[in-house]
Amino acid sequence: MTDDRPPAALAFDLGGTELRAALVAASGTILAFASAATLAKAGPAAVIEQMVALAGTVQAHAPAVRLLGVGVGAPGPLDPEEGVVLDAPTLDGWRQVPLAERLGARLGRSVRIENDANAAALGEWRYGAGRGTRSMVFVTVSTGIGGGIIAGGRILHGRRGLAGEIGHMAITGESRPCFCGAIGCFEAVASGSALGEEATRATAPGDGSDLRRRSEDGPVSARHVVEAARAGDLKALALLDAEARWLGIGFTNLLHLYSPEVIVVGGGLSNGLDLMAHGITTTIGARAMRPYRDVPVRRATLGNHAGLIGAASLILAGDGEAISREANHG
Amino acid sequence: MTDDRPPAALAFDLGGTELRAALVAASGTILAFASAATLAKAGPAAVIEQMVALAGTVQAHAPAVRLLGVGVGAPGPLDPEEGVVLDAPTLDGWRQVPLAERLGARLGRSVRIENDANAAALGEWRYGAGRGTRSMVFVTVSTGIGGGIIAGGRILHGRRGLAGEIGHMAITGESRPCFCGAIGCFEAVASGSALGEEATRATAPGDGSDLRRRSEDGPVSARHVVEAARAGDLKALALLDAEARWLGIGFTNLLHLYSPEVIVVGGGLSNGLDLMAHGITTTIGARAMRPYRDVPVRRATLGNHAGLIGAASLILAGDGEAISREANHG
Repeated sequence: MTDDRPPAALAFDLGGTELRAALVAASGTILAFASAATLAKAGPAAVIEQMVALAGTVQAHAPAVRLLGVGVGAPGPLDPEEGVVLDAPTLDGWRQVPLAERLGARLGRSVRIENDANAAALGEWRYGAGRGTRSMVFVTVSTGIGGGIIAGGRILHGRRGLAGEIGHMAITGESRPCFCGAIGCFEAVASGSALGEEATRATAPGDGSDLRRRSEDGPVSARHVVEAARAGDLKALALLDAEARWLGIGFTNLLHLYSPEVIVVGGGLSNGLDLMAHGITTTIGARAMRPYRDVPVRRATLGNHAGLIGAASLILAGDGEAISREANHG
Repeated sequence: MTDDRPPAALAFDLGGTELRAALVAASGTILAFASAATLAKAGPAAVIEQMVALAGTVQAHAPAVRLLGVGVGAPGPLDPEEGVVLDAPTLDGWRQVPLAERLGARLGRSVRIENDANAAALGEWRYGAGRGTRSMVFVTVSTGIGGGIIAGGRILHGRRGLAGEIGHMAITGESRPCFCGAIGCFEAVASGSALGEEATRATAPGDGSDLRRRSEDGPVSARHVVEAARAGDLKALALLDAEARWLGIGFTNLLHLYSPEVIVVGGGLSNGLDLMAHGITTTIGARAMRPYRDVPVRRATLGNHAGLIGAASLILAGDGEAISREANHG
């Protein structure tokens, strides 16, 4: 008797605050979803038991599927080949944790892991805004700036599975110090946090500005800036223009360094990408070398499910080569 | 009867001033060499005939070999898959030239091409300072700054075969304008030309400085700075310290972006790498994130033959995957 249940993968997105699980079909569709607040202070054993419990929940709520395996997006740095989380700054006690082996033993399935930024990049590449390309740069702009690189039809991995530490690329000689300690990092000048701090410095509590009304006279966030700009506030529009210029400078570097077919932008600030598109394009046009100027910059389409769907694709796709060949020649 | 002649490849390094040819054994050894001043103003047909003539010269001077094919390092941008030179700025009339096809027809051999920086990177990776690694960044620092990236056991190719335009990565907000038109490019602040210009500005004709004595009161070059520093001149040593800091900032970006196992430095200024090693290491130590700090920076070992040997490796190696598997598991 053959097994005619549709194939699917169990996927996890292991974040410092939220742990999410889903059963994902080969089409990229989420069949069932569950989440919990991560027991980030409780150590690896407790979190792995949370994952086992969530696996039970999503499987109980999904139709009958043939489970091919388990994919996990986890905080980096991690070793994707060995399946080991090396040092997760947002999770207490997660040093040298053989997550693939330990979770695999508990679930009785093979487990593959990838760092969260790369998982989101894989999701957008295989099922989202980068579909059909062989090279793509995914940039997530929110509290920080992260990313994942698809090159030649597969995720870019260097030494220890690392690469694409986009946020800590120096792009200027002057900035407030980055949390990493350096000066001039892309993240230090262009993240959502940096934009919020600029907006906070450009206004004052009680000044009656649109920005401070939205923040109720507290610190202004990037979200407030985007909302105020959308309502036509000139100060917010000027702040977004400056933000667009920084993004354009960073993106130009990424074009020169990786030569992607498309740059896909995710993260909270991508909600304002339409307002910054002109500024980004103008900066790229002024700074990029000619063969790189016509590369599109697109907004990510999978939202905060990109990492989960990308984690599932570690199982559903087998490997990047196979998928990309399909996309190009299929 | 079997052919027991040793296998070899014919290789060309097509530069704007010099055209070089060699017969290269599978060990990377150059069996015969010839060169000519490139007929850069005469158009593609004339240069291709030069290549045919040089091929005859090296074959006449080499032992009997079994010729596997022809590899060419040529100015980029070019399309390595299609074998087409897209637009070579240093060669008149070289736009959309199907070099692999045209040279192949004249020589009766299959021809593969790669851009010159990538060819040099392949040479150093397979036969030089990067041997045995699966990921490497090659940086050439001379008049400009160029490079080639090995990632996951193969050369990094993005859209149109491009990638690794390292010299035009913005690393600072202020600099003299780069020849590309932008401000703050790695090349604009850290190339050999930039160092020479700094040294020229820091001295004056007739000031009796060691640097101006070496330049006979003309413009000071990077070579003069390295020579004077080696002789203990304090001004030259300070200039090299500043140069080392710029290189360290750029190299830190490359570590974050590509996560190589090694950075290999070639080009004229690599002659002074020993004098700058401390400054480069200190800058990387201060700016790079922890997992990236212990990556070695090594001087290239193949000198100006790297491109020629790398071009041969396009034929001798078949593809990067095969070679790297050998290097890792052989």
